[in-house]
Amino acid sequence: MSRFFSSKYAGLTPYTPGEQPQEREYTKLNTNESPFPPSPIAQRLARQAAGNLQLYSDPECRKLVPIAAETFGVKPEQILFSNGSDEMLNYAYMAFCDADTPAVFPEISYGFYPVFAEVNNVPYRTIPLNDDFSINPEDYYGAGGTVIIANPNAPTGIALSASQIEGILKANPDNVVIIDEAYVDFGCESCIGLIDEYPNLLVVQTCSKSRSLAGGRLGFALGNEALIRDLNTIKYSTNPYNINTMTMWAGIGAFTDKAYFDWCCAKIIENRAYTKQALEGLGFTCTDSKSNFLFVKHPGIDGEKLYLQCKEKGVLIRHFTIPKIKDYNRITVGTREQTDILIRTIREIMEEAK
Amino acid sequence: MSRFFSSKYAGLTPYTPGEQPQEREYTKLNTNESPFPPSPIAQRLARQAAGNLQLYSDPECRKLVPIAAETFGVKPEQILFSNGSDEMLNYAYMAFCDADTPAVFPEISYGFYPVFAEVNNVPYRTIPLNDDFSINPEDYYGAGGTVIIANPNAPTGIALSASQIEGILKANPDNVVIIDEAYVDFGCESCIGLIDEYPNLLVVQTCSKSRSLAGGRLGFALGNEALIRDLNTIKYSTNPYNINTMTMWAGIGAFTDKAYFDWCCAKIIENRAYTKQALEGLGFTCTDSKSNFLFVKHPGIDGEKLYLQCKEKGVLIRHFTIPKIKDYNRITVGTREQTDILIRTIREIMEEAK
Repeated sequence: MSRFFSSKYAGLTPYTPGEQPQEREYTKLNTNESPFPPSPIAQRLARQAAGNLQLYSDPECRKLVPIAAETFGVKPEQILFSNGSDEMLNYAYMAFCDADTPAVFPEISYGFYPVFAEVNNVPYRTIPLNDDFSINPEDYYGAGGTVIIANPNAPTGIALSASQIEGILKANPDNVVIIDEAYVDFGCESCIGLIDEYPNLLVVQTCSKSRSLAGGRLGFALGNEALIRDLNTIKYSTNPYNINTMTMWAGIGAFTDKAYFDWCCAKIIENRAYTKQALEGLGFTCTDSKSNFLFVKHPGIDGEKLYLQCKEKGVLIRHFTIPKIKDYNRITVGTREQTDILIRTIREIMEEAK
Repeated sequence: MSRFFSSKYAGLTPYTPGEQPQEREYTKLNTNESPFPPSPIAQRLARQAAGNLQLYSDPECRKLVPIAAETFGVKPEQILFSNGSDEMLNYAYMAFCDADTPAVFPEISYGFYPVFAEVNNVPYRTIPLNDDFSINPEDYYGAGGTVIIANPNAPTGIALSASQIEGILKANPDNVVIIDEAYVDFGCESCIGLIDEYPNLLVVQTCSKSRSLAGGRLGFALGNEALIRDLNTIKYSTNPYNINTMTMWAGIGAFTDKAYFDWCCAKIIENRAYTKQALEGLGFTCTDSKSNFLFVKHPGIDGEKLYLQCKEKGVLIRHFTIPKIKDYNRITVGTREQTDILIRTIREIMEEAK
């Protein structure tokens, strides 16, 4: 820290992203990326945009917004794009949390939620999960602050139903409820259908997972027009040109190519079942994941050791040091071939431990 | 504004970006874009990256940073990239301004500076320009806050020398001095050479102008390692994956292709002289611009009227409603062909007014 750094950040601990190693080729199952490349249409449109980058991108994304709005059956005024969904979540903390409106989220969830609170100097309160790692919706009734829930939750993969979310919305009429649907497309119910009815609902999604654009950085929020206007006020006060032209066009391609999107999601759901069965066959227990990852532990293998040994053997998975989940690993659902490498590797580790 | 919007933003007026019209083809001389496409190498590398976007981008930009560091003769730890330089400026306001450390900048300058202060709830103080629109460096001695100066300044185009900036650095040892060098490559002296000597110097640059990547969004800061670490703390607490993979590769291409960069800058400097001479021939007065735009007024033509009539005739230039500069227009230096269209258009307008 320099002596010029504002004292308001003295206690700030930044987020630690998952490893993105450059030095070695890994079977990469640690950051929940899609194993499939972006839609060929997305690739083609992004490439075409590369020749014209001397002109500013369109801050309003006027070519992308109507296509996305149609995809979700909402009005163009009910959707806003961001440079990845992290940026949108930060906008939402800026807009809807302050000293009088704390952030309220599950104790075990996306590790960035407390960081957004700290960087915005906003108080926050965490609510424990049930013993089976599920969220009890009633714990969030009358939360007294802005509620943030990942659905399905990460790193557990466990989902709430839309009607359970609706209960939370009804019980917090004076606070915004942010549903972070980063992983919603892999078998979980979206809340987008509720935005007309609940002016306090903000749904945040990303093109990083189901639309294979993690490296393109394209997140978005859906909500009541007034909430979207507030988020636009933040955007136009910090970084109006936040979406570059290539990414905007990649997004247009990704939303246009619905058949490819459906195929990717179906394939990942299918591989999730295959991977889960294989891991259970090795003695692992897995939560009921509705996302593109599995959250697993083994009675005979230490969580951190498994992560380290897999890494040594060229397979990256994600381990968290948080005490309540230190026995677990979060493993991205990749292709069937990646699963086979994973299972072979874990089997080797188990053999060597004998 | 929704009823959920934090009251801390009650007085916030967002920045208004220059027009990026989609409905009609204009001779676009309003947002200081380069008239030349990105380097062919930048284009090629960006295109190649489009096929692999399912993987996250590298938050550390490990392939880009060394090339840029070498370009500027600094250490990799002295440079940080951002999603356009607006994002970096916002980071800098977050890191180096607070209730006790106001932002201090010229009264006439980049219109975003007061907005960054407002969105960060930071007080700010503006210092008038000299009557000839130049900055008096001594006005910033002992500024009592974080100094932000665009050099050359916008929209005037007038530059300070590096030794004048050095005076400001010496006279503010306990405050950060941010030099926004967005337009530095068109004939102005950079301060990058001073970063080892002055731990309070932060230089902010962009690839939007001289490197033809406005639509790619790539800004950067250079400074003492400790300042860069502070900015990284902000980045990793808000949006670690802020640089998408295509843009990182476009940046690699832009920094690699030094010959193209030199050619673009030389061409724009040449066309600036040509444009200035032509405008002076029509009776305009122009400031001594060291940037890729001219700041011009005519004794016989109202500033706003000129902007509106040019727009009607298909030529976009930029007019500001701020009283002190309302007689002026800021005109981007384009190609010689664009200048000829501009001059023909203004001549027509002058004829019609007779």
